Amino acid sequence: MLGNKKKYIVNGNSGIRAQQIQFADQKQEFNKRPTKIGRRSLSRSISQSSTDSYSSAASYTDSSDDETSPRDKQQKNSKGSSDFCVKNIKQAEFGRREIEIAEQEMPALMALRKRAQGEKPLAGAKIVGCTHITAQTAVLMETLGALGAQCRWAACNIYSTLNEVAAALAESGFPVFAWKGESEDDFWWCIDRCVNVEGWQPNMILDDGGDLTHWIYKKYPNMFKKIKGIVEESVTGVHRLYQLSKAGKLCVPAMNVNDSVTKQKFDNLYCCRESILDGLKRTTDMMFGGKQVVVCGYGEVGKGCCAALKAMGSIVYVTEIDPICALQACMDGFRLVKLNEVIRQVDIVITCTGNKNVVTREHLDRMKNSCIVCNMGHSNTEIDVASLRTPELTWERVRSQVDHVIWPDGKRIVLLAEGRLLNLSCSTVPTFVLSITATTQALALIELYNAPEGRYKQDVYLLPKKMDEYVASLHLPTFDAHLTELTDEQAKYLGLNKNGPFKPNYYRY
Amino acid sequence: MLGNKKKYIVNGNSGIRAQQIQFADQKQEFNKRPTKIGRRSLSRSISQSSTDSYSSAASYTDSSDDETSPRDKQQKNSKGSSDFCVKNIKQAEFGRREIEIAEQEMPALMALRKRAQGEKPLAGAKIVGCTHITAQTAVLMETLGALGAQCRWAACNIYSTLNEVAAALAESGFPVFAWKGESEDDFWWCIDRCVNVEGWQPNMILDDGGDLTHWIYKKYPNMFKKIKGIVEESVTGVHRLYQLSKAGKLCVPAMNVNDSVTKQKFDNLYCCRESILDGLKRTTDMMFGGKQVVVCGYGEVGKGCCAALKAMGSIVYVTEIDPICALQACMDGFRLVKLNEVIRQVDIVITCTGNKNVVTREHLDRMKNSCIVCNMGHSNTEIDVASLRTPELTWERVRSQVDHVIWPDGKRIVLLAEGRLLNLSCSTVPTFVLSITATTQALALIELYNAPEGRYKQDVYLLPKKMDEYVASLHLPTFDAHLTELTDEQAKYLGLNKNGPFKPNYYRY
Amino acid sequence: MLGNKKKYIVNGNSGIRAQQIQFADQKQEFNKRPTKIGRRSLSRSISQSSTDSYSSAASYTDSSDDETSPRDKQQKNSKGSSDFCVKNIKQAEFGRREIEIAEQEMPALMALRKRAQGEKPLAGAKIVGCTHITAQTAVLMETLGALGAQCRWAACNIYSTLNEVAAALAESGFPVFAWKGESEDDFWWCIDRCVNVEGWQPNMILDDGGDLTHWIYKKYPNMFKKIKGIVEESVTGVHRLYQLSKAGKLCVPAMNVNDSVTKQKFDNLYCCRESILDGLKRTTDMMFGGKQVVVCGYGEVGKGCCAALKAMGSIVYVTEIDPICALQACMDGFRLVKLNEVIRQVDIVITCTGNKNVVTREHLDRMKNSCIVCNMGHSNTEIDVASLRTPELTWERVRSQVDHVIWPDGKRIVLLAEGRLLNLSCSTVPTFVLSITATTQALALIELYNAPEGRYKQDVYLLPKKMDEYVASLHLPTFDAHLTELTDEQAKYLGLNKNGPFKPNYYRY
Amino acid sequence: MLGNKKKYIVNGNSGIRAQQIQFADQKQEFNKRPTKIGRRSLSRSISQSSTDSYSSAASYTDSSDDETSPRDKQQKNSKGSSDFCVKNIKQAEFGRREIEIAEQEMPALMALRKRAQGEKPLAGAKIVGCTHITAQTAVLMETLGALGAQCRWAACNIYSTLNEVAAALAESGFPVFAWKGESEDDFWWCIDRCVNVEGWQPNMILDDGGDLTHWIYKKYPNMFKKIKGIVEESVTGVHRLYQLSKAGKLCVPAMNVNDSVTKQKFDNLYCCRESILDGLKRTTDMMFGGKQVVVCGYGEVGKGCCAALKAMGSIVYVTEIDPICALQACMDGFRLVKLNEVIRQVDIVITCTGNKNVVTREHLDRMKNSCIVCNMGHSNTEIDVASLRTPELTWERVRSQVDHVIWPDGKRIVLLAEGRLLNLSCSTVPTFVLSITATTQALALIELYNAPEGRYKQDVYLLPKKMDEYVASLHLPTFDAHLTELTDEQAKYLGLNKNGPFKPNYYRY
Repeated sequence: MLGNKKKYIVNGNSGIRAQQIQFADQKQEFNKRPTKIGRRSLSRSISQSSTDSYSSAASYTDSSDDETSPRDKQQKNSKGSSDFCVKNIKQAEFGRREIEIAEQEMPALMALRKRAQGEKPLAGAKIVGCTHITAQTAVLMETLGALGAQCRWAACNIYSTLNEVAAALAESGFPVFAWKGESEDDFWWCIDRCVNVEGWQPNMILDDGGDLTHWIYKKYPNMFKKIKGIVEESVTGVHRLYQLSKAGKLCVPAMNVNDSVTKQKFDNLYCCRESILDGLKRTTDMMFGGKQVVVCGYGEVGKGCCAALKAMGSIVYVTEIDPICALQACMDGFRLVKLNEVIRQVDIVITCTGNKNVVTREHLDRMKNSCIVCNMGHSNTEIDVASLRTPELTWERVRSQVDHVIWPDGKRIVLLAEGRLLNLSCSTVPTFVLSITATTQALALIELYNAPEGRYKQDVYLLPKKMDEYVASLHLPTFDAHLTELTDEQAKYLGLNKNGPFKPNYYRY
Repeated sequence: MLGNKKKYIVNGNSGIRAQQIQFADQKQEFNKRPTKIGRRSLSRSISQSSTDSYSSAASYTDSSDDETSPRDKQQKNSKGSSDFCVKNIKQAEFGRREIEIAEQEMPALMALRKRAQGEKPLAGAKIVGCTHITAQTAVLMETLGALGAQCRWAACNIYSTLNEVAAALAESGFPVFAWKGESEDDFWWCIDRCVNVEGWQPNMILDDGGDLTHWIYKKYPNMFKKIKGIVEESVTGVHRLYQLSKAGKLCVPAMNVNDSVTKQKFDNLYCCRESILDGLKRTTDMMFGGKQVVVCGYGEVGKGCCAALKAMGSIVYVTEIDPICALQACMDGFRLVKLNEVIRQVDIVITCTGNKNVVTREHLDRMKNSCIVCNMGHSNTEIDVASLRTPELTWERVRSQVDHVIWPDGKRIVLLAEGRLLNLSCSTVPTFVLSITATTQALALIELYNAPEGRYKQDVYLLPKKMDEYVASLHLPTFDAHLTELTDEQAKYLGLNKNGPFKPNYYRY
Repeated sequence: MLGNKKKYIVNGNSGIRAQQIQFADQKQEFNKRPTKIGRRSLSRSISQSSTDSYSSAASYTDSSDDETSPRDKQQKNSKGSSDFCVKNIKQAEFGRREIEIAEQEMPALMALRKRAQGEKPLAGAKIVGCTHITAQTAVLMETLGALGAQCRWAACNIYSTLNEVAAALAESGFPVFAWKGESEDDFWWCIDRCVNVEGWQPNMILDDGGDLTHWIYKKYPNMFKKIKGIVEESVTGVHRLYQLSKAGKLCVPAMNVNDSVTKQKFDNLYCCRESILDGLKRTTDMMFGGKQVVVCGYGEVGKGCCAALKAMGSIVYVTEIDPICALQACMDGFRLVKLNEVIRQVDIVITCTGNKNVVTREHLDRMKNSCIVCNMGHSNTEIDVASLRTPELTWERVRSQVDHVIWPDGKRIVLLAEGRLLNLSCSTVPTFVLSITATTQALALIELYNAPEGRYKQDVYLLPKKMDEYVASLHLPTFDAHLTELTDEQAKYLGLNKNGPFKPNYYRY
Repeated sequence: MLGNKKKYIVNGNSGIRAQQIQFADQKQEFNKRPTKIGRRSLSRSISQSSTDSYSSAASYTDSSDDETSPRDKQQKNSKGSSDFCVKNIKQAEFGRREIEIAEQEMPALMALRKRAQGEKPLAGAKIVGCTHITAQTAVLMETLGALGAQCRWAACNIYSTLNEVAAALAESGFPVFAWKGESEDDFWWCIDRCVNVEGWQPNMILDDGGDLTHWIYKKYPNMFKKIKGIVEESVTGVHRLYQLSKAGKLCVPAMNVNDSVTKQKFDNLYCCRESILDGLKRTTDMMFGGKQVVVCGYGEVGKGCCAALKAMGSIVYVTEIDPICALQACMDGFRLVKLNEVIRQVDIVITCTGNKNVVTREHLDRMKNSCIVCNMGHSNTEIDVASLRTPELTWERVRSQVDHVIWPDGKRIVLLAEGRLLNLSCSTVPTFVLSITATTQALALIELYNAPEGRYKQDVYLLPKKMDEYVASLHLPTFDAHLTELTDEQAKYLGLNKNGPFKPNYYRY
């Protein structure tokens, strides 16, 4: 869910640090399910992305910056290299401090650096990357470097780059091509600068959204064939890979890290259990106790939302289309209803389906005064917001991310983040969750790069369970958690290797 | 977990009805993982099954019965048929009443009867079955009959047959061969009477434990080849099927219904969440609030136990070998420890691992006075009970299923069910859970019987997701739960059929 | 709630030990709220107590006993004393073992013995007691003895005496007058034998129900005036004391230990949180997950029931008459409804009000098939069971404590314990809860006996908060709980004594 | 807890509305427990109040305001009155809108207006008030007006006034004397202008903190004697009233509304259950799952914090000095420890004691790197923050309300709100909670004003239980909660009035 096109918006608290970044997902929304909405080229239509979320976005040193395009600047880092393109190389020191703080909160990658010191499992790897450029990504990139890889990097989103961090990476020698506020042309130019350099034949791709992959696939087919492996993090990118694969055009093994167990649980269940409360509180200051809430969808996201709200004293109803998930909702103590049955009485409506038009204009018309409507699913289609853009309804922005939509009779509904993802727009993603993702990416790169000839064909793979377990084990020390080891006798009894994997592939956790 | 060899023990409350049946699993324990303990033949060693659990077992009309073996009796039902062998055909009326009550609590099967009235999806099916003979099974058998099947049935356990129910089935025309207290010879004789009748070529097998399957496989290889499908419910039976398959000897498609989503969740997570409290309370009358508990293993069973005890105010520690499950325990709020770290301080030790010697004599030596030790996993090997059978320790039976083991210094530990499954020995299985299982079995039979040529090869299959979803949907009315249906537009958007299946196979629920 | 007239019924599990005692409350029901039902004398109408609860009651050695009345027997203990009257002095050894086991589970009283070894705070006290005679009471009596008191004891209930325990007490020198199955005449004879002995002027009364107090008050008014204090545990007895006090006839200070904080929380909130699940499970083997439940009343008992059922996955509705409790229910996440609004849809109805006719025949008529109805409040009036005793309804006893009431159209409701207290009839009271009560009683005796002249007037008092806190502190070691001590500076800042009391009297906990 | 001197800080989100106000409590901190810190006069030492919380404070129209003191301005409202002193009467329209929105969220007061339309229970009342001037207070004031009262009002805090709201009140005719950023001299001048007007003899006081009461008591003793009643909301003010009463100088009945049941539960348990999560999330973006937390104090605030964190998957330890609360913590599933035992291992330390120096420098020295320390109790003394102001430690402000304190070895602890109240500094108070308080105040005024001669003496009283219940009942419609009414028969059985009060005074809820 978090793996799609994200954009950061720094919220207005504007402390010294920019830790409180928030993700928006507008870009995700125009290019996801690309085959369904007639997307035919790689070109991106920036006009489609709602821009008001960015109005308040500000990096803490940006305001003093000039308006010259980075592409027009001549910059060198302290070692004399100019193989990069960032906003302002002089901001490197600020960025370095952010990276150092992130390092403290990403012990798994730091452990990976330590364990791999001798062996350099990525020696010889030439990685092109296209991700958000944040302090957490910087820790990942520097870890890849420490493991022996050479890297070149671009941003996967035109808004999300933290310029200071990009500067710090450039200063320490990484060829980074990214800045906050790229134009569409800049976006592709940056990607191309990562890929197309004399004497550089990348052999690994780390992608978030699939744009880098498709650029190489389309523009440099010969280079593409020499790639040893692709690691893709986002729902969208994975979807595009499966399309390529189905079409028989994927000539490189790819790894879908989006669906690894650990990443899924953290991105969805654990993260949303906390962010639903946070997102609602920051936007509305409401009290949860006694409120009637309907949650549409009882997948991992819905399960997290329901558990949190129930624990806070809300009365929660659930809607589902899948009878198995529906039965789970029942056994967990939630009334399973159709939305129509409760729409008049609920105080809050939350969508978590991944579906479209789950909340229709008809539902919106029937909600009671002051009903709060928001979306925790993975696109902005779940609530039919477009249907509210009609003359008889008045929109009133009462706060950042909070609109009152007012009916002629005075009834107001409170729409959050204009129907976009509440958890990305109005809450934050804990570094711990980003650490899970980054570690998974690093291990996927190691796995693909070191796999013996033939282990991976020209197909899309899930992360091997043993690697998934390894990601988990690297995060246990954070909780001072002590794993039990099998004795030889026990391992034999269970028919397991003492070091895992411990479960069959169909195990559901 | 519940699918293995079960034996009923009617507890001492001995009301008029025998609804409060409890399952024990001794027999399961000697013949599971057969390849590991050198089991070479189909013969079963009754001497290995602990017998004291049965001492209190009594059917409510048994006491007045004579001691003549059913095999030596001449009995006819009211229609003149004698194609059955039960304890006493005159008990039919009592059994019928039990069946009628069970029908009320198994609405899914009743719905299946209604929906299939016209089409008779099992017309022509000739099913041999080998399961526990209980009121719930009777509802299943009569449902199969209503769907068009002919059935012949034996018991999968020598102790668990409810004689009245068997009589009722015989009276209404089912060839049933089963009674409570069969000898080993009786056991195989009954199975053979189901299989080997002139003019009868069964085409479907419904098995629980694999004994029927292996009997036909060994004794009637030609008959075996003509079978269209095998449905197997138990862990043990599934294991044996996979062995056959690996060895290339499985010439019939088989369906593993043990691992269907719905059945697994109910047998393990939901059932154990309730039965851990029930089992502990009935045996020890302890108070849960404030107690320190260690739960070994955080799979579905462990998750259920932990959630229940936490909710009741216990302080729960978890041990795990699998880092992913370990991380789940952390995120759910449990300290992850090694057993040694907390063994001196806890009030209760619960094993849920499926492993052996998880609690060793060394652990037992270090427990504090009055510590309660019990097993919720799926065999009796988790606690090293054998190590307690030494001369310096005194055993004192303080109640049915409760032993005090006393150390020379006076320390006592409270061992429940001698280390066998607490939930089967000291609690009950709700009819709702049995309904899930029975419905799953019925649908698996329908699926295999009606599958077009070639859909299923000579292999072991999981229940198709759509069937799994159907089982769930049949149980939703019990909760007055209202499922939402996809609109055409939504189904298209999601790329789904409106009737399911709704999730990819790897979905984890 | 538990403090009223209790009767034990040993359940049918009938292990060697009788630990699994269960309390019934029939007697409570005929003599509580005495002023309302025109009770004018001390005579008790045994005919009014429903007797079927006792049918299964059996002490483990009783069966071999003769039928001679204990009053007609000549018995001596090993020291030659015959100042007692019990069933069979030879059972003393069995009783002693029970007492020893109870001692292990009542560490607070054992600690009291140890701490008071030197000082003997009850030296000179002459206590007459009238309580249930159980192993737990025996631990209390022997503690009182160890603290310096002389005691004489009778049973407060004609059914609840454990004969072996009474024998053990007699053997060790306590003048005990009690046996299981006393007649009404026996009952008063026993009480009189405790009170009226030459050379014995009791100075303290420990009562449970008020019968002993009223006997002395009526029959021995001069003796009554010389009493230094009365300690009363039950709701009924406390009610009678307040009546006396209002009438200006209470010439002795009395302590109401029923309403101490610690006792109330354990008797109601903590105990019911567990016993509602236990009571429902033992009687019906139902599954809680997904069930719709309405709980009438949101006092401590209701709060406990609601919390437990919610945690097990039930959907819980609450009814209330008090708007403050109603608001608490809302904030805790329960829909507050009138019973009529949900009566057609719920699976379980639980009363916890202390009120009468909360569930009426009209409600019962509207319940759905298989609805379970039970009472956790403090009398048998909450469900209008009498209204079900009409010709058109059929009663069918399906199990001990479980009746099906069947309507002409075949609808059944499942009535538990005939509307009497579920937790006393169908569950057990943990020794830990009894320990809280016994410790409170002991401390109340010490307080009243040692109070300086004039501290207590001729009135009914609550246990001083400091004593209440002391009871709590004596039970903390059970949980290995470590209390923090105030520094001198902190105590001064808060204006508190370092040893308590720590809260104002109106504090609500 | 919230009733003390509060100051608003508008957070940086700075939407159009100022609903997201946050309270700080610096002023509270210097003048509470006045007798203990040698406070001898009414003068307030502004220098003691930490000022950095206000740095970001900004009203949405303030920036354009001139700097002339309101005392020097000549202003008239549209009706020509100049009996008020506010920042800018022209802001009235903005304020009116805020008030209208608040009205929607305070249905209890609106209901009160409606119900009292005919009777005017405050006809003739002349109320001087001194509270925070916010939209919610405005709804209260206008309600008092609608009930017949005349009001004059000042602010109880020099920072918390919302100028627009003050303007709106002035415009509609209320003599209001208050603005944001008063000097100390302004503060007393405003109070005096409320009190000392020709022809005005107030007969009721509504106070928050006791400053108004003491001003009248000291300066206008004759006026004081003619007051019919005082209603005081804050801990501090109540404390001062009890001091006066003890000293025999309280010649007016006063009502302590701080300790009413409903207000206490909402201010503490329910509010803190939500604000602990909100406060931690907004300041640190941390993840709660798996974190080890120690909560010092298990009163209402501690209970709320513990419940919320446990529900979010944290592992919670509790410290307590009171054995009864300690036992409650045990039964609720928390390990009861001394702070020293867990201080090295916990990720978060939260104080909720009301005590001082609960977290000492020694504790702080032993915490692990990145440990978060915060205070939810009712003063800023719980954490010994002063001990951290030593040369060897470096303070680094990383965000508003967040400091890193860095040890020489690089260890950082994360101190929130400099040890002041987290819930007031870093979270918000829901309007629903303020509604409870305002309704309680209104009812207390009605009660005191209408009480028959002699019902209230010259003492401090708690709100009558019936009023407390009425406050609760007025808030039930918010939850669509339906209260059950007693039948006549039931009321008689219980010995209750059908309209309450329903519980004895010592009832603990």
